[in-house]
Amino acid sequence: MIKIGVVDTTFSRVDMAKYAIEVIETELPEATIIRYTVPGIKDIPVAARNLLINEGCDAVITLGWVGPGAVDKYSYLAMSVGLIMLQIMTGKHVIDVTVHEDESSDPEELYQIAVDRARKHALNLVKLVKYGREALTQYAGKGLRQGRPDAGPVIEE
Amino acid sequence: MIKIGVVDTTFSRVDMAKYAIEVIETELPEATIIRYTVPGIKDIPVAARNLLINEGCDAVITLGWVGPGAVDKYSYLAMSVGLIMLQIMTGKHVIDVTVHEDESSDPEELYQIAVDRARKHALNLVKLVKYGREALTQYAGKGLRQGRPDAGPVIEE
Amino acid sequence: MIKIGVVDTTFSRVDMAKYAIEVIETELPEATIIRYTVPGIKDIPVAARNLLINEGCDAVITLGWVGPGAVDKYSYLAMSVGLIMLQIMTGKHVIDVTVHEDESSDPEELYQIAVDRARKHALNLVKLVKYGREALTQYAGKGLRQGRPDAGPVIEE
Amino acid sequence: MIKIGVVDTTFSRVDMAKYAIEVIETELPEATIIRYTVPGIKDIPVAARNLLINEGCDAVITLGWVGPGAVDKYSYLAMSVGLIMLQIMTGKHVIDVTVHEDESSDPEELYQIAVDRARKHALNLVKLVKYGREALTQYAGKGLRQGRPDAGPVIEE
Amino acid sequence: MIKIGVVDTTFSRVDMAKYAIEVIETELPEATIIRYTVPGIKDIPVAARNLLINEGCDAVITLGWVGPGAVDKYSYLAMSVGLIMLQIMTGKHVIDVTVHEDESSDPEELYQIAVDRARKHALNLVKLVKYGREALTQYAGKGLRQGRPDAGPVIEE
Repeated sequence: MIKIGVVDTTFSRVDMAKYAIEVIETELPEATIIRYTVPGIKDIPVAARNLLINEGCDAVITLGWVGPGAVDKYSYLAMSVGLIMLQIMTGKHVIDVTVHEDESSDPEELYQIAVDRARKHALNLVKLVKYGREALTQYAGKGLRQGRPDAGPVIEE
Repeated sequence: MIKIGVVDTTFSRVDMAKYAIEVIETELPEATIIRYTVPGIKDIPVAARNLLINEGCDAVITLGWVGPGAVDKYSYLAMSVGLIMLQIMTGKHVIDVTVHEDESSDPEELYQIAVDRARKHALNLVKLVKYGREALTQYAGKGLRQGRPDAGPVIEE
Repeated sequence: MIKIGVVDTTFSRVDMAKYAIEVIETELPEATIIRYTVPGIKDIPVAARNLLINEGCDAVITLGWVGPGAVDKYSYLAMSVGLIMLQIMTGKHVIDVTVHEDESSDPEELYQIAVDRARKHALNLVKLVKYGREALTQYAGKGLRQGRPDAGPVIEE
Repeated sequence: MIKIGVVDTTFSRVDMAKYAIEVIETELPEATIIRYTVPGIKDIPVAARNLLINEGCDAVITLGWVGPGAVDKYSYLAMSVGLIMLQIMTGKHVIDVTVHEDESSDPEELYQIAVDRARKHALNLVKLVKYGREALTQYAGKGLRQGRPDAGPVIEE
Repeated sequence: MIKIGVVDTTFSRVDMAKYAIEVIETELPEATIIRYTVPGIKDIPVAARNLLINEGCDAVITLGWVGPGAVDKYSYLAMSVGLIMLQIMTGKHVIDVTVHEDESSDPEELYQIAVDRARKHALNLVKLVKYGREALTQYAGKGLRQGRPDAGPVIEE
C-alpha cells in the first residue's frame, strides 16, 4: 500500500494542501493520504519525520509559507537544512513546496502561485513515487517552474 | 502521564514562560510541567534535549529572545537548526516561541507581542499533544499569527 | 564493477547531465551510469544518497541550477550542507556542479558555462574514482576553474 | 568529582579563560578544571567535544573571539551550529562566551566586555552545574546581559 | 606511528600544501604525510573524512581557497559546518587554512598571506598533535594571526 504524507501550516495564507491532495487522489488513487498540520515552517520537519518514520509514508509533500523579513528567510533556511537531513536519513523524498509572501504584492497572483506550485509539485511527487528515479528525466534541463510559467532551456539545442 | 517541558532564558526581557505555563495548566491540567532556564538562545537546544530525553517530556515549548544585530540573527539561525535536528531525532514537537527585540520600538507593544505569542503557541502545543496531527487542520491556510493579529487567507475562497 | 550516479533537475535550463554522461562514458567506459532526475536542487541530496547507498554507486555527480534571488542562494546553502554531510557519512565523493542563473545575462554564455562546468567536473570525478586521492595533486594550487578559463596561480613560483 | 572544561583560543585578544577559571575556582572549588587552547573559533567544537567525551567533563565553557568581517561571522555561525549539535549529542552544557571585535572601537571597553562576559557566563555555568535546571529561573525574563549592563524587563510587571 | 593528512584543491591559486608539508616534515619528522587533492572547497570535508577514518590519520590540515562572491562565501560556510561536524564525530583536529581571494587585490600580498597562513597553521597542528591540549595555552588571548601580523592583546595586562 502506498502512503503519502501531507504537511501544512496554519501560518500559510492559502490552503495549499487541498490542491496537493486533489492531485494525489486523482493521479494516485490507490494511495492513502495522511495529513499533519503544524503552526509554522519550523515545525514542518518533525511532522514530515513522524509521517515517514512513525506512519511509514513512502514520501511526503510539505506546504510552507514564509514571511518577507530577513528572519523569516533564516527560518526557511533552517527548515530546508532539516528537511534535507531528514531525507538523507530516510532515503525518502520530501517535496518541499514553499511560497514566499514577497513573491507578489498582488493577493490574487500570490494565490495562483501557491495553487500552481502545490499542484505541480504534487504531480512531481506522484511521478517519483510511481515511476522512480527516471520518471522526470525527460524533463531534465527543460527549465520547468512551479508557481510560474516554465523558464525553458536557455538556448534551443 | 503527560509531561511538558518549558525552556526559557535570563536574556529575555519578558517572562514569557509564566504565560505559557498558565495556558498549559488551564488547558492540560493533567500535565506535569518541567521548567528549565538557561542564559540565552544558544543554550535552549540542550535544555530542550534534556527535557525530552532525560526527563521524558512529550513535548517542549521554548521561549527565546533575540537581539537586533546581525550576529544575534545568526545565533537564532543556529538555534533553529539545532531545535529542528533535535525534533527529527526524537520525533517530538519543540514549539519555538521567539521574540526579536527589533519587532517593535515600543516597550509596551513588545511586551504584548511576547505575551500573545507565548500564549497562542502554548495553546498550539496543547492541541498537538492532546489531539494529534489533525488538531490544527481546520486552521490550515488560515494565515494565523502569534504575537500579531491573524493575517488571514490572501483571498476568500 | 564501477557505478557512477548522475543527479540532475527539471529546474535546470541546460541538460548538463548529457555532457557529464558523455565524458564518463568516454573516459570510464567500464562504468555503469545510473541517472536520477529530481525537480530542484533541494531534492538533489536524497537522490545522491539513494544512488550511493541503495544502488551502491562509487561516486555521484550532481548538476544543479540556482535562481538569482536571495532565497535561491539559501536553498543552495542548504543543499551544500546536505551534500557535504552525505559525503562525510558515506566517505564517497559527490562532485557538485552548480550553475547560478546570474553568472551571465547572455544565454549563450550561460549555456557554455554550464556545459564546460559539467564536462570538467565529470573528468574530475573520473580521475578521483580511477586514480584516487593523488590524481589531481599535479594541479594543486594551479587555479583551475570549471565553466570559466583557469585563473592560474597568483604568481609564478 | 566535578570536571569543568575551559576552551580558549590564541586568536583572542583577551585572556578570557583566566577570568572564567578564577570564577570557577572560587565558586566551585571542588571542581577539576581542564583547559584546552586552540588556534581559533572553528577549532573550539572539537576541543569541547574531547573535554566532554574523552575527559568526562560535566560541562564546558568556551571563550571565542570573532573578527569584524562577514566571513568571520560565517565562522561564528558554523561554530555555533557545531556547539549546539555537540550539546544535543551529549546532553551537557557548553556555555559559549563570544566577543566580537566590532562590539567596540575602544580597546579598554572591549577588554571590559570580554572580562565581564567571561566572568558572568562562568557563574552561569557554575549555577547550572551545581543547582540544575531551575538555578536560573529566578532570573528568567529579567533581561540579564553579559559584557554589558543588564537590559532589564521591557516593562515593569 | 603518527599520520598527518593534507587536503588541498586545484581551485587554489597558491600551492599551500607544499609549505604546510615542509613545516610538518621539519617539525614532526617521524610523521607519515598523506596528501589528498580535490577540485574545490566543498570537496574538502569528504577528503578529510577519508584521511581520518579510512587512513587513520591523527589530524588533518586543509588548504582551501575561496572566491570573492556571495555564493563562494556560502560554500565556505557549508564546508566549515561540515569540517566542524566531522571533528565532533571523530574527536580529531582538522585545522582549516582558508584564503579568501578578496583578502588583497595585490597578487604578491595574497601569495604571502597564503604561505604564511599555511606555515603557521601547520605549526599549530604539529604542536597540538605533539604536545596536546595545553600546547598553545601560553599563547591564549595573545591575538595571534596567520597570514597577517599578530594583532596582539587589546590592552597590556
